[in-house]
Amino acid sequence: MKNFTSVKDIPDLKKAVETAFEIKKNRFAYQHLGKNKTMVLIFFNSSLRTRLSTQKAAMNLGMNTMVMNVNEDGWQLESELGVIMDGDKPEHLKEAIPVIGKYCDVIGVRAFAKYQNKEDDYAENILNQFVEYAGVPIVSMEGATRHPLQSYADLVTIEEFKTKERPKVVMTWAPHPRALPQAVPNSFVEWMRETDYELVVTHPEGYELAPQFMGDVKVEYDQNKAFEGADFIYAKNWASYSSYGKILSKDFGWTVNEEKMKLTNNAKFMHCLPVRRNVVVTDGVLDGPWSVVVEQAANREITAQAVLKMILEQAQ
Amino acid sequence: MKNFTSVKDIPDLKKAVETAFEIKKNRFAYQHLGKNKTMVLIFFNSSLRTRLSTQKAAMNLGMNTMVMNVNEDGWQLESELGVIMDGDKPEHLKEAIPVIGKYCDVIGVRAFAKYQNKEDDYAENILNQFVEYAGVPIVSMEGATRHPLQSYADLVTIEEFKTKERPKVVMTWAPHPRALPQAVPNSFVEWMRETDYELVVTHPEGYELAPQFMGDVKVEYDQNKAFEGADFIYAKNWASYSSYGKILSKDFGWTVNEEKMKLTNNAKFMHCLPVRRNVVVTDGVLDGPWSVVVEQAANREITAQAVLKMILEQAQ
Amino acid sequence: MKNFTSVKDIPDLKKAVETAFEIKKNRFAYQHLGKNKTMVLIFFNSSLRTRLSTQKAAMNLGMNTMVMNVNEDGWQLESELGVIMDGDKPEHLKEAIPVIGKYCDVIGVRAFAKYQNKEDDYAENILNQFVEYAGVPIVSMEGATRHPLQSYADLVTIEEFKTKERPKVVMTWAPHPRALPQAVPNSFVEWMRETDYELVVTHPEGYELAPQFMGDVKVEYDQNKAFEGADFIYAKNWASYSSYGKILSKDFGWTVNEEKMKLTNNAKFMHCLPVRRNVVVTDGVLDGPWSVVVEQAANREITAQAVLKMILEQAQ
Repeated sequence: MKNFTSVKDIPDLKKAVETAFEIKKNRFAYQHLGKNKTMVLIFFNSSLRTRLSTQKAAMNLGMNTMVMNVNEDGWQLESELGVIMDGDKPEHLKEAIPVIGKYCDVIGVRAFAKYQNKEDDYAENILNQFVEYAGVPIVSMEGATRHPLQSYADLVTIEEFKTKERPKVVMTWAPHPRALPQAVPNSFVEWMRETDYELVVTHPEGYELAPQFMGDVKVEYDQNKAFEGADFIYAKNWASYSSYGKILSKDFGWTVNEEKMKLTNNAKFMHCLPVRRNVVVTDGVLDGPWSVVVEQAANREITAQAVLKMILEQAQ
Repeated sequence: MKNFTSVKDIPDLKKAVETAFEIKKNRFAYQHLGKNKTMVLIFFNSSLRTRLSTQKAAMNLGMNTMVMNVNEDGWQLESELGVIMDGDKPEHLKEAIPVIGKYCDVIGVRAFAKYQNKEDDYAENILNQFVEYAGVPIVSMEGATRHPLQSYADLVTIEEFKTKERPKVVMTWAPHPRALPQAVPNSFVEWMRETDYELVVTHPEGYELAPQFMGDVKVEYDQNKAFEGADFIYAKNWASYSSYGKILSKDFGWTVNEEKMKLTNNAKFMHCLPVRRNVVVTDGVLDGPWSVVVEQAANREITAQAVLKMILEQAQ
Repeated sequence: MKNFTSVKDIPDLKKAVETAFEIKKNRFAYQHLGKNKTMVLIFFNSSLRTRLSTQKAAMNLGMNTMVMNVNEDGWQLESELGVIMDGDKPEHLKEAIPVIGKYCDVIGVRAFAKYQNKEDDYAENILNQFVEYAGVPIVSMEGATRHPLQSYADLVTIEEFKTKERPKVVMTWAPHPRALPQAVPNSFVEWMRETDYELVVTHPEGYELAPQFMGDVKVEYDQNKAFEGADFIYAKNWASYSSYGKILSKDFGWTVNEEKMKLTNNAKFMHCLPVRRNVVVTDGVLDGPWSVVVEQAANREITAQAVLKMILEQAQ
């Protein structure tokens, strides 16, 4: 693997899941791979799980790590080409990225959608400049449109907890006070489509995801109906794609609660975190027998390590 | 030792002091203990000494470290139970803490008193949630009511510099422009009460510390009288406990100066730092023969390492 | 080498260049030097290249590193002597520096000119307090008046790309919307004067650098004339020294562009970065055959490592 920005970068998804389970058994078995190798983690946005789990994954492999909140620790970065840089951004990605690439062997980068312009976000302007200019492998730590490290961990979590060969996996929209990116739901759908699970997406009208991610995945607008017989409930808020970045509903009728979970086939409850309690999902569900959100987050370390292992093996 | 949040967690204080002195002789002798172990340091508040000394201590033991200013690097964290999280805090400690615990072997956490509500502060709401939810050992890097890593270093410093078996140790209040927490004085008294030193506390009326920390420790309201014959002067400001979080006095008459130090038995001057010069204590004292504040701060590395060593040994 | 704050600390500049080229061939050959050694990097100001390249250099030598944005992570630091500290700065450098020195073997410090007072800046008030109080070697990661880690990398870059024994090196002022420090141009001139290169400095009238740095170096006020036959163009903005900290010109006629580069002897274009595109220099130059700015930045790792190697060897 050269770069990791989507599921398309994984050559063999079955084998990738096996690799994750091997790492989980002995995460310190591959330290020769990372000796004298350094990963730089660049954050344009906040991060808890990704920050800690990716550092931990790199250290498990014997790598050194350096972390930058780039806009606070360094300089505000310009990403537009051809501009006269006389404003508040003193450095351009065209210099910053190749320079960072000179100081390390792998770069992780997190750059969320800004929800100012759909075309800019969906062009993955910042992430793609990293891929183009870095000179070293790039790992997306969440781009504007995808969060593949999360989705890989989601897949491994489902494989870990599934009780039947082909589980019914339901991704449900849930309310939230802020306009959240579509990266997690886009990416989750993209990864699930590479499996043979039964996938159902449920959300209020107007919250349809981008067609290039959804393909022919079934949308069920009746949340209760979607939940029937589900083996996994994956909850997530996102802002509208068609009315780009807008909040069309804060309907607490979509909050996942214990009554709704009882419609399922004793489903596991998943969420990428951070999650707003009693808005997205009730205390009762999170503190009840359904929730696997902590185990799911724990798998972030494992799959980040699997990605880095694949990159380091190819670089040898 | 499972967790380290107060002197009560130390099984044998005499032995703990010996351990510190052994480490001071050779701080790199125990690196097998920390191999492939990781400590995460979580800061809700500013830190210089604690940040550097605790990292250094962990690295001395061969551990990896990850540092987070949690509210800036990550997400604002909700600590109240049962709330509808539709405000400015997108993540709850109930998720954040066990997730952090999945990525490491020990968590250090700093969470100061907020001085909004005495009951909340003295319940150690945040620190106790870490102990309850983390699944790995917790080291207090200063809680709302105690700063045990500081007090352990204070004790070792007194043992290092004392010239008689049972020194007279005087803790004196001093003025300050801000309302500072009671964690350092509470904790210092709590640790000193485990020794057979002669302990005297001096402060203006209204600054009495919480009775559960003070017990029957003698308060001398006349600072000069308290200083007579003292072997150690420990200066510290704190806000009132009875008029909770209030500043009742900024009387520069309580500033420790050279004249007052001359009342003592050639006492060593101690302070946990940061210290406001010419407010808490004069330049003359800090730059004179009395001050051991730098040596005291240096012992923070040693005692943090002693705590981590005890935790790693028990975890084996 | 005990401290590294200017070219004067380098005992033999020719040998220092050779050391850099040796390190560049095998940067992991000296890890015995840094075993159980720790470097603390203290930032009073933003940093990308210095932050990453210095950490990387230390790690190449097997050192541990700790990074602090001191005013954000720690406490606002007072640097004036004798003040009554009842304002917004709770800690004095006189305590903070020796304490930091107790937790490490080398301190790197970045403290820019503040442009409030010429005497204060040119006295290197903060950097010199570090040298005085730290008790361990200090590496300047850019002071108020010099940036020697940059200049050392500049020298190595010229040695790498020069096509004749004694190249013509031209440092040109260029416009910029902010009042930038003089550290980089001062330092560049200081280092170039230790070589036998032909050095020319060009800038608008009023932008003369401090005489103690310039000595008898030639100033050519006609930029085009200066560029004729140049082998290296080093562009940099700085604010006025005589009208201290003032911006006297934003004349885009001084922007380095392709036409001007064509006046040179196929010169290499250098800049310390960050650089404002189409203000200091055009896209055409940066994206054209002239630019070596990324290679120049890459040498920051190499020369930082050379400096740390010299310090560690002396400390043995």
